[in-house]
Amino acid sequence: MADTLAELAAQLRVDSIRATTAAGSGHPSSSMSAADIVAVLFQKYLRFDFQHPHAPDNDRFVLSKGHACPVLYAAFKAAGAIDDAELLSLRQFGSRLEGHPNPHVLPLVDVATGSLGQGLAIGVGMALTARLDQRRFRTYVMMGDSETAEGSVWEAFDKAAHYQLDTLCALIDMNRLGQSGETELGWNGEAYVARARAFGWHALAVDGHDLGAIDRALAEAQATKGKPTCLVFKTEKGHGYSLIANHEHWHGKPLPEDKAREAIQELGGERNLRFAVRKPEVTKPSAKPAAGPLKLPTYATDEKVATRKVYGDALAALGDAHPDLVALDAEVSNSTYSEELRKAHPDRYFEMYIAEQNMVSSGVGMAVLGKRVFVSTFAAFLSRAYDQLRMAAVSNATLHVCGSHAGVSIGEDGPSQMGLEDLAMMRAVAGSTVLYPSDANQTARLMAALVDLRGISYLRTTRAKTPVLYAPTEEFPIGGSKVLRRSDRDVVTLVAAGITLHEALEAHARLQDSGVAVRVIDLYSVKPVDVKTLRQAAKETQGRLLVVEDHWAEGGLADAVLEAFSDGTEPLPRVKRLAVRKLPGSGKPEELLAAAGIDAAHIVEAVHALRDTPAPEGSRATGTAKTRRAH
Amino acid sequence: MADTLAELAAQLRVDSIRATTAAGSGHPSSSMSAADIVAVLFQKYLRFDFQHPHAPDNDRFVLSKGHACPVLYAAFKAAGAIDDAELLSLRQFGSRLEGHPNPHVLPLVDVATGSLGQGLAIGVGMALTARLDQRRFRTYVMMGDSETAEGSVWEAFDKAAHYQLDTLCALIDMNRLGQSGETELGWNGEAYVARARAFGWHALAVDGHDLGAIDRALAEAQATKGKPTCLVFKTEKGHGYSLIANHEHWHGKPLPEDKAREAIQELGGERNLRFAVRKPEVTKPSAKPAAGPLKLPTYATDEKVATRKVYGDALAALGDAHPDLVALDAEVSNSTYSEELRKAHPDRYFEMYIAEQNMVSSGVGMAVLGKRVFVSTFAAFLSRAYDQLRMAAVSNATLHVCGSHAGVSIGEDGPSQMGLEDLAMMRAVAGSTVLYPSDANQTARLMAALVDLRGISYLRTTRAKTPVLYAPTEEFPIGGSKVLRRSDRDVVTLVAAGITLHEALEAHARLQDSGVAVRVIDLYSVKPVDVKTLRQAAKETQGRLLVVEDHWAEGGLADAVLEAFSDGTEPLPRVKRLAVRKLPGSGKPEELLAAAGIDAAHIVEAVHALRDTPAPEGSRATGTAKTRRAH
Repeated sequence: MADTLAELAAQLRVDSIRATTAAGSGHPSSSMSAADIVAVLFQKYLRFDFQHPHAPDNDRFVLSKGHACPVLYAAFKAAGAIDDAELLSLRQFGSRLEGHPNPHVLPLVDVATGSLGQGLAIGVGMALTARLDQRRFRTYVMMGDSETAEGSVWEAFDKAAHYQLDTLCALIDMNRLGQSGETELGWNGEAYVARARAFGWHALAVDGHDLGAIDRALAEAQATKGKPTCLVFKTEKGHGYSLIANHEHWHGKPLPEDKAREAIQELGGERNLRFAVRKPEVTKPSAKPAAGPLKLPTYATDEKVATRKVYGDALAALGDAHPDLVALDAEVSNSTYSEELRKAHPDRYFEMYIAEQNMVSSGVGMAVLGKRVFVSTFAAFLSRAYDQLRMAAVSNATLHVCGSHAGVSIGEDGPSQMGLEDLAMMRAVAGSTVLYPSDANQTARLMAALVDLRGISYLRTTRAKTPVLYAPTEEFPIGGSKVLRRSDRDVVTLVAAGITLHEALEAHARLQDSGVAVRVIDLYSVKPVDVKTLRQAAKETQGRLLVVEDHWAEGGLADAVLEAFSDGTEPLPRVKRLAVRKLPGSGKPEELLAAAGIDAAHIVEAVHALRDTPAPEGSRATGTAKTRRAH
Repeated sequence: MADTLAELAAQLRVDSIRATTAAGSGHPSSSMSAADIVAVLFQKYLRFDFQHPHAPDNDRFVLSKGHACPVLYAAFKAAGAIDDAELLSLRQFGSRLEGHPNPHVLPLVDVATGSLGQGLAIGVGMALTARLDQRRFRTYVMMGDSETAEGSVWEAFDKAAHYQLDTLCALIDMNRLGQSGETELGWNGEAYVARARAFGWHALAVDGHDLGAIDRALAEAQATKGKPTCLVFKTEKGHGYSLIANHEHWHGKPLPEDKAREAIQELGGERNLRFAVRKPEVTKPSAKPAAGPLKLPTYATDEKVATRKVYGDALAALGDAHPDLVALDAEVSNSTYSEELRKAHPDRYFEMYIAEQNMVSSGVGMAVLGKRVFVSTFAAFLSRAYDQLRMAAVSNATLHVCGSHAGVSIGEDGPSQMGLEDLAMMRAVAGSTVLYPSDANQTARLMAALVDLRGISYLRTTRAKTPVLYAPTEEFPIGGSKVLRRSDRDVVTLVAAGITLHEALEAHARLQDSGVAVRVIDLYSVKPVDVKTLRQAAKETQGRLLVVEDHWAEGGLADAVLEAFSDGTEPLPRVKRLAVRKLPGSGKPEELLAAAGIDAAHIVEAVHALRDTPAPEGSRATGTAKTRRAH
């Protein structure tokens, strides 16, 4: 066997070199250090049905050091899952084999990697899923040694031990060399082992080029119960080709053709070994549990209810209906109200403590294995996991994200706790949906819509209790909006959402008292945005829009509104934005809304200013406005 | 002494209760657990000149568990730095004593805290500054136990040991209880100690309510050489008032007035002790070193140079001129080119390895102590530190951030490595400046401007070499733009920056060949944006703008352009945006620019479509356009 494994490992190295040299870029040396580990793991341990990569009993393998994907693709070839021609298409436009693994095009991988330090937390989510579903699959996460500098890795170490995830195995490819020089710990395997042990893991240092030692270590990991295992493999970057082995300055560089030939020769030439990866043991049917009837909470229109509370109520109701729904929170479940799911279904609530990065990545790990995943914390603290959210979209995951305590309206806690950039951040996630409800029934209905929505969705909730505006029967399509106030004499359209919608309604009332009619739009769907309603309103309200948001002026509601007018085809309105422009402090919510210039009084003032704007010569919009004002 | 300390600690508890009860919100229980530690530290160890809080020999105290600020404010009162009336203004609108410490209003604190897990990394930056400046001050960071779940904390543990920062002391207030329940490790002080030791620290568990033990532990920390010290204090949340001590459900809740009276009685009543904090030993003059002459690099207009390379060249030149300039990088200095500073001034380059969060927070720690700080990594990976960047602004820090490898134009590495949300993210930072140069000389000049700019600035650089467009003498004011192509017959304005500017120039050439004149604006200053030039161009080019950006459609260049037209004073021009809208893959840069629809060919096509747009009836802009086209 050892001979076959050695041959296979040599083939993985040769193919890593061939593919990267053909591509003219890539990371052969980082692939070569890992080849022996991958060879043993794939041939002796992994149970995976390549015909059905998403089969629920498959072991999972996450290549956290995504730049080493040539060795993974080479293993796929050796397992018969891709052919040599495809292997050599690495990094070419249109190839499934991208520079870092991407499940959008390559379903053989579960998640996208390449932003280092995220794989282990994804593995935590996968191992939690195995336990929840009572399946026997194991999760292997291969990391680089450099990436252990990422704090997200230690969040994952901590959570894996906390949840005693003995089906999780971390494989650290300790090749000593990072991108620009030696790692902090070099080849000090015992230092890694000590850290892993201090975080509650079973850990051992292993020679990563000794096939027998790798085999024994993987067997030990498999036999270890009650805690996850971390194997710290001492390896050489570029192992197998003496010119580059353990030499600096060979990170992320393909071998030139002559050197590639020399390396392949030193490695014993090209091979074309095939091996059959073991199939998983099927433990139970793979069908998803059926959804039951949904009993969404409803609220009376004379109540005052915080949308964050409704998030929790609806989450619990959705949890009743969907047995595959889970929620994760970062130790603020009594503020975000995800505790409602914990109370209703404690087995499907996962406390991630104050570790937002791990929360998101573990959520991704569960999501790509088929769970309906909701994650929540304060909107401000989601910024801690922005890279993980960005990568969740690259992973083609469906993840429902809730950020509570949005904006200055949270009051006394001050700016560190105020989500003021969350809309900007979440709009700029690939294919995302961004929702910002203002009312209890709306929040509940949007939650019901989210649960079946693909991709990354974001729901922004408010700390304060606000009046219920809508009947429980009202519908709120994603991409829609609600025109809450309108008349034939409207001179300005107020566009608001969430907390500022209530200010806009108050401003409407005050303006009405002084004989000024304005339209009020509840723009609860920030992305996609309701282009049609906004354009219609602009036409009908003298081309004047006033957007009011409890968010920085950049990237939020106003930018979303302007996007609706930027396909280059329509006549365009005047748009003024009221938003947070200077750093808020502590104070009562109403004091802070006033100080930011986004309360009813400032809206009234801005409407008057907008009405009084001199009409640009010959502008039809204002021409119309004048005509209509004359009515 | 012990009696005085006990009295002082009781006063800190009483005052924490008084202030939060007066405020009607806040965190008395989290303050009470820490009171004994704060009492001993402030009375016996801290050397701090309250008259000159920024004196460079002052010890630094960072309250990473910012929500416990009532105990800090109470200590300020006991030290005579604030009076009782101010203490009781806690959390009121306009008070310097916000719900979490904020140096914008309270210069007694160096940084804003409240987003947990950031203080220790800030402390790392401060201790590095002490070493760099050869000053003897010590840095104390008080953390909550809950916040050790944040990976950023372990990045800081790792860096502090790596740099052998023995002037740094971490104080963990292990009060066992988080916001929503017990922490993962409860009162297992040895578990914390084991983790800290595994990360290279001297660490010990201490009774946090035994004043003598606290005293001895702080003395031991002071005497420990070669490594930082972590003191894990076992405490009770709410210690001193039996009703709440060590009880759940008292996180973040002020005592009602009757309970406050009861608590104060149990604590022995109000006191008004004063003590004098020891003054620091002045080791050398505090004046900043004078800047020398700046020899900025220049580039010939027949060269092709990557703006990322110029970042490094200019950084080294600025480092020559400014002895107080430092740079930090996250192990990609050979990609961002911050290695140029490392080569020129190795003592002022700090390798943070792959730990972006620590890089930013340590940069903040150095910045608030007076260094000119530049931090750099791939633009995509800055998303890892978005919370830290957000908080840097709340800390009123001046930090220069560079993100390289922006956009799809990086090519084969694929979407995980592409910065496509960085403009959205950095625009939505309080008071930020966002720059995106397209050319070598421009980059160098902007770097020279940045070095004296306050606040958070962001420079986006490009991987590929691009033609030099500007002479070295050209000036680039922040908030400006450059009109690179113009004629009296322009029918559309192309607005671009960075890589897409070169595509726009190529499109201009192609359009010119087919007799279509377009204006080309280099919008190198994304925030603030050049409102005047954009408006002028809109007026002069038939109200038509085409914005082209290598960034998601949301939050970037197009949103910045539209912002220039959204003060409500004028109708918007027609603005069409070409931006990245679907997930890119791997490929050659030109293939990916084409696939994203942002290359010269797509710009040409979009210009034709925009020209052919039917004129909105009566619109003056298009009326003008027609007239002018007829010329």
